[in-house]
Amino acid sequence: MNTNTQTTRLYHSTLSPFCRKVRLVLAEKKIEVELVEEKYWENPPDLKRRNPAGKLPVLRHRGHMLAESQAIVEYLDEVVADPALMPRQPLDRHEVRRLCAWFDDKFNSEVTQPIMNERVWKKITRSGYPDSRAVKDGLRAIKEHIDYLTTLLEARRWLAGNAISLADFTAAAHFSCLDYISDVDWDRSEAVRDWYATIKSRPAFRSVLADQVPGIHPAPHYAELDFG
Amino acid sequence: MNTNTQTTRLYHSTLSPFCRKVRLVLAEKKIEVELVEEKYWENPPDLKRRNPAGKLPVLRHRGHMLAESQAIVEYLDEVVADPALMPRQPLDRHEVRRLCAWFDDKFNSEVTQPIMNERVWKKITRSGYPDSRAVKDGLRAIKEHIDYLTTLLEARRWLAGNAISLADFTAAAHFSCLDYISDVDWDRSEAVRDWYATIKSRPAFRSVLADQVPGIHPAPHYAELDFG
Repeated sequence: MNTNTQTTRLYHSTLSPFCRKVRLVLAEKKIEVELVEEKYWENPPDLKRRNPAGKLPVLRHRGHMLAESQAIVEYLDEVVADPALMPRQPLDRHEVRRLCAWFDDKFNSEVTQPIMNERVWKKITRSGYPDSRAVKDGLRAIKEHIDYLTTLLEARRWLAGNAISLADFTAAAHFSCLDYISDVDWDRSEAVRDWYATIKSRPAFRSVLADQVPGIHPAPHYAELDFG
Repeated sequence: MNTNTQTTRLYHSTLSPFCRKVRLVLAEKKIEVELVEEKYWENPPDLKRRNPAGKLPVLRHRGHMLAESQAIVEYLDEVVADPALMPRQPLDRHEVRRLCAWFDDKFNSEVTQPIMNERVWKKITRSGYPDSRAVKDGLRAIKEHIDYLTTLLEARRWLAGNAISLADFTAAAHFSCLDYISDVDWDRSEAVRDWYATIKSRPAFRSVLADQVPGIHPAPHYAELDFG
């Protein structure tokens, strides 16, 4: 492993939407990164030293340790200007941030977390069997979210406006985790399916689509670019 | 009530830390605002129209409806430059955002939410009696947070650096809710007590210190400026 502290390094967990968000933005910005997989549920001794919050992702960039996915991606957008993933006008910037919070807070607590907890984390950490009611609640909630995105995409090319932004990568990070275990009903909305197919076909998505988690096989269509 | 859509109006709930964060930043920026108290637990019919996420706060500003407290305060800092509540350097900006997330995510889920849920919201919404274990967990967790802030304040005048920032108002919003019901052990850290006494004495805090929630009396020291 390269121990040069100038190497950009991401401490992450493969199926965490917050880690994927940072990976996608790094890749979109063409920032080379060394990925270090962390079993955060085993409380690795160095995690709290790198991030006192004890959470992933942690990005080492230019010798600094950075934490909190939204704070990291806004930082990356500020230090690597091209391609810009934030618009310039305050009102447009608010809309990007509102939708980032929508996914990292509301979508995460209603959909990603319950489904991934039951179907993935309990298996990986050997902490019991899936609670089918929690999964069912998550699968019901995702429908409302897909419907909301559909109304957004009626008026916009991307989620927060006509340019791709941090909002799209935040949303795609969550969807990609669920899609790995095949829990997205893509038939519900052509607009949302097309949006995801378009973002998924970007070079930035390649590393995420190549992910393989031991013991948890990706859905057959997971890495396919033409899955409509 | 003034129905001019150009009036700045905040739909809020008095003891929500997220609403207080926006109120404090509005006041610090000297933006006059009309406060509209919402009983969000009764699902007011217009709430989802104003914010599809169905959450408070919602700010109407210059005719636009804005949601998500962090997205709102960053917007306010961008449209009203003076006083600046975000530093200029990307690394410093990251630190502010990391600490905002620390409070709105980690501190909120470990401290504010369990304590306020048990001691305040159950009473207001008449949905049962406090679970003393949840309160105890919250009171244990707040100690670790105060210790962490103490280490930050050893090297800095304000939480994220030597200038006051959104991080201080975010933290103060959470502490002020807990202080209303007297659940902060200010004796644990002189540094944190002094930090809170200083921010509390700013004119921006006046409206928050005048709050009175029917049926829930503030702690005797709540509005006192010299409480050390």
